[in-house]
Amino acid sequence: MFLNSADPLYTEPADSRLIRESVEIYRNTKEIDVGSNRLNFDELSTAMDVALGKRPASLVVLNGEIVNVCTGETYAGGVAISGNRISKIGNVKQCVGERTVVVDAEGAYLVPGLIDTHIHIESTMLSMTRFAEAVLPRGTTSVMCDLHEVGLITGLRGIREIVEKGRELPFKEWLTVCFEVPMTPSKLETVGGHFSKAALMKMLTWPEAVGWDELSVPMLMSKSMDIVDKIACARKLGKVTDGPCGIVEDPDRVIPACVCAGVDYSHEGEWTTKGELEMLRNGMRVNFIEGGNVWMQNLKNQAKVITEHRVQARHISFATDDLSAEDIAERGHIDHHVRRAIEEGIDPISAIQMGTLNAAELFRIDHAIGSITPGRYADILFVRRLEEFKVHTTISMGRVVAKNGKMVIGLAKPRYTSVLMETVKLKRKLKPSDFLVRTKKNARTVRIQTLVSNEEVRGFRNGEAVLEVENGTILPSVQNDVVLIAIAERHTASGRISVGFASGLGLKMGAIGTTVAHDHHNLVLIGTNPSDMAFAGNEIARMHGGQIAVADGKVLDSIPLPIVGMMADIDVQTMAAKVKSMKETLRNIGCNLTHPFMHLSFFTGALTGWGWETGRYNITDKGWVDLESQKIIRPIVGVNERTS
Amino acid sequence: MFLNSADPLYTEPADSRLIRESVEIYRNTKEIDVGSNRLNFDELSTAMDVALGKRPASLVVLNGEIVNVCTGETYAGGVAISGNRISKIGNVKQCVGERTVVVDAEGAYLVPGLIDTHIHIESTMLSMTRFAEAVLPRGTTSVMCDLHEVGLITGLRGIREIVEKGRELPFKEWLTVCFEVPMTPSKLETVGGHFSKAALMKMLTWPEAVGWDELSVPMLMSKSMDIVDKIACARKLGKVTDGPCGIVEDPDRVIPACVCAGVDYSHEGEWTTKGELEMLRNGMRVNFIEGGNVWMQNLKNQAKVITEHRVQARHISFATDDLSAEDIAERGHIDHHVRRAIEEGIDPISAIQMGTLNAAELFRIDHAIGSITPGRYADILFVRRLEEFKVHTTISMGRVVAKNGKMVIGLAKPRYTSVLMETVKLKRKLKPSDFLVRTKKNARTVRIQTLVSNEEVRGFRNGEAVLEVENGTILPSVQNDVVLIAIAERHTASGRISVGFASGLGLKMGAIGTTVAHDHHNLVLIGTNPSDMAFAGNEIARMHGGQIAVADGKVLDSIPLPIVGMMADIDVQTMAAKVKSMKETLRNIGCNLTHPFMHLSFFTGALTGWGWETGRYNITDKGWVDLESQKIIRPIVGVNERTS
Repeated sequence: MFLNSADPLYTEPADSRLIRESVEIYRNTKEIDVGSNRLNFDELSTAMDVALGKRPASLVVLNGEIVNVCTGETYAGGVAISGNRISKIGNVKQCVGERTVVVDAEGAYLVPGLIDTHIHIESTMLSMTRFAEAVLPRGTTSVMCDLHEVGLITGLRGIREIVEKGRELPFKEWLTVCFEVPMTPSKLETVGGHFSKAALMKMLTWPEAVGWDELSVPMLMSKSMDIVDKIACARKLGKVTDGPCGIVEDPDRVIPACVCAGVDYSHEGEWTTKGELEMLRNGMRVNFIEGGNVWMQNLKNQAKVITEHRVQARHISFATDDLSAEDIAERGHIDHHVRRAIEEGIDPISAIQMGTLNAAELFRIDHAIGSITPGRYADILFVRRLEEFKVHTTISMGRVVAKNGKMVIGLAKPRYTSVLMETVKLKRKLKPSDFLVRTKKNARTVRIQTLVSNEEVRGFRNGEAVLEVENGTILPSVQNDVVLIAIAERHTASGRISVGFASGLGLKMGAIGTTVAHDHHNLVLIGTNPSDMAFAGNEIARMHGGQIAVADGKVLDSIPLPIVGMMADIDVQTMAAKVKSMKETLRNIGCNLTHPFMHLSFFTGALTGWGWETGRYNITDKGWVDLESQKIIRPIVGVNERTS
Repeated sequence: MFLNSADPLYTEPADSRLIRESVEIYRNTKEIDVGSNRLNFDELSTAMDVALGKRPASLVVLNGEIVNVCTGETYAGGVAISGNRISKIGNVKQCVGERTVVVDAEGAYLVPGLIDTHIHIESTMLSMTRFAEAVLPRGTTSVMCDLHEVGLITGLRGIREIVEKGRELPFKEWLTVCFEVPMTPSKLETVGGHFSKAALMKMLTWPEAVGWDELSVPMLMSKSMDIVDKIACARKLGKVTDGPCGIVEDPDRVIPACVCAGVDYSHEGEWTTKGELEMLRNGMRVNFIEGGNVWMQNLKNQAKVITEHRVQARHISFATDDLSAEDIAERGHIDHHVRRAIEEGIDPISAIQMGTLNAAELFRIDHAIGSITPGRYADILFVRRLEEFKVHTTISMGRVVAKNGKMVIGLAKPRYTSVLMETVKLKRKLKPSDFLVRTKKNARTVRIQTLVSNEEVRGFRNGEAVLEVENGTILPSVQNDVVLIAIAERHTASGRISVGFASGLGLKMGAIGTTVAHDHHNLVLIGTNPSDMAFAGNEIARMHGGQIAVADGKVLDSIPLPIVGMMADIDVQTMAAKVKSMKETLRNIGCNLTHPFMHLSFFTGALTGWGWETGRYNITDKGWVDLESQKIIRPIVGVNERTS
């Protein structure tokens, strides 16, 4: 009865493959942890020896007041660190050796590194390195991002490259895998990365991946086998699934149905107090969300579940979702959430748990992050007064990285390959004639559908305009605020360009352009005349992507975003200044949008159903499309012909 | 840049295997959950429809007061159930259809089904079915057991069979996989199942498996690659690892070192208040342990971390480890822990969370059990007064299974195969001559090493006795309390029998025998004469295992344990009565041990280092062994020869 490899149970196919693989992976790598920066056997062994007092620590924090999020206590003590991990807490004087770096906390509270459970770092336009540099001084040491915008341009390859390079940072970048990329797949436009179910499931197996994000109610309600398979895959891997976000219609029935489908959490929570309470009562974990200034600010409502309804906070954490470089520069990151929660009347220990342990438990990685306890990454913040919650020192992965709001170590420029750096692929230089909209030779005027900006809701409407025709070319009407809008395909160098008309932007002269445009991220050009549009497009191609304003053949202002055409390796202050300057420039040429390029990034393309207002028609690289019938149509609704 | 199977990232070996397998498993089975009883796609779809009001529930509980362990609230509401899952909570009247079973809770509190996070059900001597029947009326709906005793007799096969049959029950049996089986592997004795590292890792991949258990401090401190691999495998699978239990020497250094090694929880916690606090502060999850009457009772000390040190309870749950049928019959199961915790001054909601949500979160299966929320198994208890915590109705997996302390449904007798039912394999019938201990023909007396009972510590010492020899046969000395002890190998029918001498048991006549003996579980026979020992052994073999007392060729009392020689399919009351009667019988033949067979189960064999007192020498089926040198030796230390 001794078990050996002849035992028939050994040949059961599925399980034995898994076990073989598990054994194999760990035999080869000796890795014992998931996450961006892994612990190998030697590190593990060293960490144990430091705890046992057999070996000195690499860094010791003395004279702190530990905020122990596991027990909810605070008490005097220090932390002994071995490499990037915590070895021991409490009494650690004996861990100091000759070469140990000793940091005196001077009685400050020691708080675990903060966690943002959902962010699209692409919206900051900063490279991962500069993003880390911006938020580390604020106390953030882990973020969950899905990088699906990068994926839409580069495919899996580019995401992997960012993740790999991210490992070199004293910062942890975990992945939540976007459930569908593009979010509303469409044959009506070209994207750079279209992810099969298998590709997404593969991403989910990556050690950095902690779960799915961005499932919508309609997806869940469809009960398609694709969805069942994907959620089942997460269960199998011990990972979690994000579900309905924001205001849910008929929450009393829809929330439990989504939870039945396998949803574990909501990255935005429900924005109303009542809805948030409903999610928590239904066993979902939720986030208090405080996005950038022009995004969602829901913490005030959501906090009432604690301050008024008195629910326990253990299933609540924090997220930003989208925010700009200006937001980070002005108010901070998750430290801002902690302060806001305290302002709303939540006790500081609970607020800190939301920013740390609760987030780690949500993703089932509390063995790696979320508390100042042995074996976890050594991410420790010094805070003098909990109520004020101002981070004055950040230790991340065992190193002092920031003091008094500034980095004290430099983070090397990431060296990305052409996969990320050369993503604006045009077939040839753009010419003014590419931006002419033709109609019948004998037309005098045409009535044509237009795209009308509606910045209030970050969306658009449709309208109609009557435009003059000259020799078969439809002319924009700057005085009536009807300008040209074009999409130049930039992923496959197909040479495809489509042109239409937009209004509500206020542009009085020149042209503007951007390569940030959800979900297609083709080159979007808006202009008062074809020459400036061609010039703007060629300039953007030369910069390998970015945002630009031109007039009369001159660049008025530009923000080069050479990383996938969406991000740049420049520091947060510079980026914030550039964005501010660009707004000013746009105002000077008549564009009075409050956040022009951010608005434009949701203005074009076939993406629908994500919560902002959309009209029926929009422009993609393939033409003027009817989003309802999913067909390419002609925008001209009437032609007034010359009677010659 | 479109991703397809030609993408080089697809050929990365390890990940792609895993993803292929994940896809495959779920494509074939449509299963969406881990655990003993899985949810298939149709069930999922139905559960969603019930929540949405598109289909009536199978069972609805009305008029309850929901104890929502996720938010810490209690509020009026009901529960709608679809099959074995919860579909909706709160307002559920609209879920009642024509064929819906409606249960009126009459205002009772609705509490989630209770969870025992660590139990060896073998110690109850009840089959899984009768165990479930015993604890369901007490409110337990999930147990984590490792079944390693079964494994020691049958190998992986028998464990799998019990798990498979368990799926037919309205009860959830999860597995924690014993880290090493046998616990102290030894060539000095024969066991029925010796588990390779690969076999144990295979078990860990089973959907019912939630983690490793029974790691000891010495194992962890050894830092062997075996240990690293096993812990890494758990991390990879999203499962957890049990670590040091009970009183830890030098806790200030050893606890953090164990946590650095990858330990997540302690199934017994630390038995002292200080040690328990230390574990919690170090980020471990712990159990409050209240074993059977003769096992550990540590809740009183452990509870002080909450009542005196005021730590948050979220990382604390409950376990029994070992308990007898009598314990269950007399005091209950995890319901007893909840009552004890409340008695110690812990608030009822926290106590209930420890018995439910906290346990589920510990094992990262809070999507499946631990709260009355949608998608979870429909395990619901009715309790009139929380402070009293008396379960008067149990709904398990969507069915009312017990009312007023009694089952209201019958659980069919399990039909196990010979793998579990025919495990006492002797080469031939035992004969009295098998139990003769020979020495030199001319010896008059011998001085011989003995095994001395030390019931106080559940262990043994060694002693020496001077015994008379007749025709080369060493005679027991009943008047001096030195009797014969024998181990008959029963796993491989090798015919191996070894015989020695034991004292401290008080036996005055006849013989006793048992097939429960950790970790070898061979046939242990203790007797005043060879004939009764042979008779006792043959009777046990006829019963396919169990416990027996005989005298003068007659059976005085017996407990047949035909399931692996350790368990029987008889109800808890009958089992408790049998154990009581057997104690009485043993007392009548002079054996005054308080818990004779339980004591005997830890009396023989090569198992060492598990916390109870052991001497240097013991008896196994291979002979008299020196546990220190791990060699078989001769127990005779001196011979007094006849001068003829």
